[in-house]
Amino acid sequence: MSSENAIKNPHELLERLNELHPSDIAYSLKKIEKESEDDFYYVLKEIPDEILGEVILELPDNLREDVYTLLPSQRLSDVVYELDSDDATDIIQEIEEVDEEKAKEVFEGLEEEDKHEINWLKRYHEDEAGSYMQTELFSANINETISDSIKRLKEGKESDELENIHQVYIVNNEKKLIASILLEDLIIFDFEKTYEQIINEHEENRFKPFVVHDKDHIDEVAKQVEKYDLNVVPVVGYQGILVGRITSDDILDVIEENATEQMYQLAGVNDDFEHEDNLLNTAKKRALWLFLNLGTAILASLVIGMFDKTIEAFVALAILMPIVASMGGNAGTQTLAVTVRQLALGEIDFDNSKDAIKKEVFISLANGFIFAIIIGIIAWFWFNTALLGLVIALSMIINLFSAGFFGASIPLVLKKMDIDPAIGSTVLLTTVTDIVGFFSFLMLAKLILL
Amino acid sequence: MSSENAIKNPHELLERLNELHPSDIAYSLKKIEKESEDDFYYVLKEIPDEILGEVILELPDNLREDVYTLLPSQRLSDVVYELDSDDATDIIQEIEEVDEEKAKEVFEGLEEEDKHEINWLKRYHEDEAGSYMQTELFSANINETISDSIKRLKEGKESDELENIHQVYIVNNEKKLIASILLEDLIIFDFEKTYEQIINEHEENRFKPFVVHDKDHIDEVAKQVEKYDLNVVPVVGYQGILVGRITSDDILDVIEENATEQMYQLAGVNDDFEHEDNLLNTAKKRALWLFLNLGTAILASLVIGMFDKTIEAFVALAILMPIVASMGGNAGTQTLAVTVRQLALGEIDFDNSKDAIKKEVFISLANGFIFAIIIGIIAWFWFNTALLGLVIALSMIINLFSAGFFGASIPLVLKKMDIDPAIGSTVLLTTVTDIVGFFSFLMLAKLILL
Repeated sequence: MSSENAIKNPHELLERLNELHPSDIAYSLKKIEKESEDDFYYVLKEIPDEILGEVILELPDNLREDVYTLLPSQRLSDVVYELDSDDATDIIQEIEEVDEEKAKEVFEGLEEEDKHEINWLKRYHEDEAGSYMQTELFSANINETISDSIKRLKEGKESDELENIHQVYIVNNEKKLIASILLEDLIIFDFEKTYEQIINEHEENRFKPFVVHDKDHIDEVAKQVEKYDLNVVPVVGYQGILVGRITSDDILDVIEENATEQMYQLAGVNDDFEHEDNLLNTAKKRALWLFLNLGTAILASLVIGMFDKTIEAFVALAILMPIVASMGGNAGTQTLAVTVRQLALGEIDFDNSKDAIKKEVFISLANGFIFAIIIGIIAWFWFNTALLGLVIALSMIINLFSAGFFGASIPLVLKKMDIDPAIGSTVLLTTVTDIVGFFSFLMLAKLILL
Repeated sequence: MSSENAIKNPHELLERLNELHPSDIAYSLKKIEKESEDDFYYVLKEIPDEILGEVILELPDNLREDVYTLLPSQRLSDVVYELDSDDATDIIQEIEEVDEEKAKEVFEGLEEEDKHEINWLKRYHEDEAGSYMQTELFSANINETISDSIKRLKEGKESDELENIHQVYIVNNEKKLIASILLEDLIIFDFEKTYEQIINEHEENRFKPFVVHDKDHIDEVAKQVEKYDLNVVPVVGYQGILVGRITSDDILDVIEENATEQMYQLAGVNDDFEHEDNLLNTAKKRALWLFLNLGTAILASLVIGMFDKTIEAFVALAILMPIVASMGGNAGTQTLAVTVRQLALGEIDFDNSKDAIKKEVFISLANGFIFAIIIGIIAWFWFNTALLGLVIALSMIINLFSAGFFGASIPLVLKKMDIDPAIGSTVLLTTVTDIVGFFSFLMLAKLILL
């Protein structure tokens, strides 16, 4: 698998299309575009419709926008026509963002059935399971024989409408989903029997489908898929009517995206604005976070300002004070990352939140004592003042205690208030560790040293 | 799906075993254990062998260890016997860590074939694809008819050996993997034909399997599965011999674990030691990181110490200096998180690393100018000294520039040196932003103010 080797020659790429996966073609196209926009457009024009759609889906956002601008509406309709309903809907919506008029033209160029499905999928909010599902699936009426349904499967596969099929969904006359039979089971049954016969011959829960609802939050669906090791999950709507299915590759993307989002949020970055063409927009979004942080830093400075006379009398305090704040910030960040992640993975919940806080306080405090001794001795000998060592040691213990306590409590409290615990928790935490760090150190110095 | 409602009554749980998924049973068991160890043991004793193995796999580490200690060797053998080879190997290795003697007894209680497979899987390193694969799969010789192979599938399913089957792997007489046919294709073919006939009737690449090698790194396998939207991937060994397969649920776990690891590493936490029963071990591992950070903080203090006379003359410097360092640290963390994540997702590579650095420098610098103006004005009016505003403004620009430059370069350089860019990059970065922040601010103050 030489997937990492891009084919930078447009003619070679076009010749080898059949042996390449769409994501490899996309990777090569990305490299071609960097060297020549003309070559990029040339390849776009020449790639067959049935491949191009899948390739577009693998391109980065900015190149997708280029494609929507470069290709004529009729060509885009032909490409969208070849895609599964969920992907087709995504692309139509993306074109809308670039050029509403063109999106309308592309949409009008589709067949009635596709238009109907896209209009229907578009109604779902982007967080709802419905917006991740595809309507293409293999279903059968309970009164049908297996062999009749397999004939339909064959037709669906020949027309490229059905792929990635792992089970047949059995519905009743009202289209309500009542069973799901894996192909690995189906293939060993007697094809002349009806599904009703098959279901009756087996124990009650044997074919009971695991379902999600079209209005469920996609993160919940992802959690279930992970928990129950599912490959595909059927989606039902009003009154249990089967409306679509979500495949594990989409779930994988959701999980990967959520992890990215969480990591970014902890660092004060908004994922949605990281792929902007205009970097000033990205800068603006990041500035919001830095602005909050500036507020925190000024607050900490005000605390220091309360002790200006103490510092003037004893400049060593100015030299040492960042150490206490920095250690508190780091210990707090450790606690925060662990708590946020374990909350997301379901390892911490409200049932055991007290244990989680206790655990984190214990760990921070243990380290607080160790580093109190180390820095106490260093400060003592550095400035030849035993009491200065005592001051910094005590304030280290106080600040690492508060780092553990607040690092664990802040995300839990945010979660309790139904706020995403990754958002804003870092800035809240550093406010605490900075202020507690500077205040405890300078206050103790004022009391003990002067 | 009331998956979140634990059944805390042991009798009720045992009665409802058949309608519950192993991970739901594990969830309830966790809650039962919290309330009574006796009830926990009682349920363990009563759960049938064929369910218990799957349940153990879903329990948290500490409860798994309890299970290995509580249950007799013979019972553990019966439980392991029911599992797929990859899971059986994992459990035997986990028992080894708790009690080597007992692990030997459990192993001796297995059938010869299972012993052979476990011994073989144990040879793989934990990062190798081989250690994630299961040897149970549905394969057929190329000269076999479809119907003969389906008979074997039926037997395999009846004996619970085969499950989660999506394709048949076709091998030649030397057991070399030559094709992979999806069940959705197989079910519509003529069952009386041999696989050779089927393959010859179709175009060349139609059934070409995507394979990974048993010695491949599991992270690489995960990347491929994600990239090519695979459900299952066959694993081949020496000379292309089919040795096993990896299913997407295992890949999902790998992706989730890698994301956790990355997030933890950025925060200075080692994932491997976060689930220790002895919290002092967790504290010790976190202390290592804090120790590094202490070194950084002391370095920054030494820089401040170079300017003790300047601070004595002008205590406002002590009050304001943490602002510059803190803003640099935060802007740098933003850049670092984005760069580390995009490197991991393959969005940044060495081809476009210069663009990535340029982008980050531009964003940081843009924010550097904005915050220079804001903090410059604040400092000017706060201390009624225009030049102090100039000093902090200039040092803000310098430090945010270095935050962007080093935040993007450090992970890239680490990656170039084949070091995981998430490890250690935070501490390197804050060293830079602290030292540049304090030095530029105090040096400029000395030059301009005094």
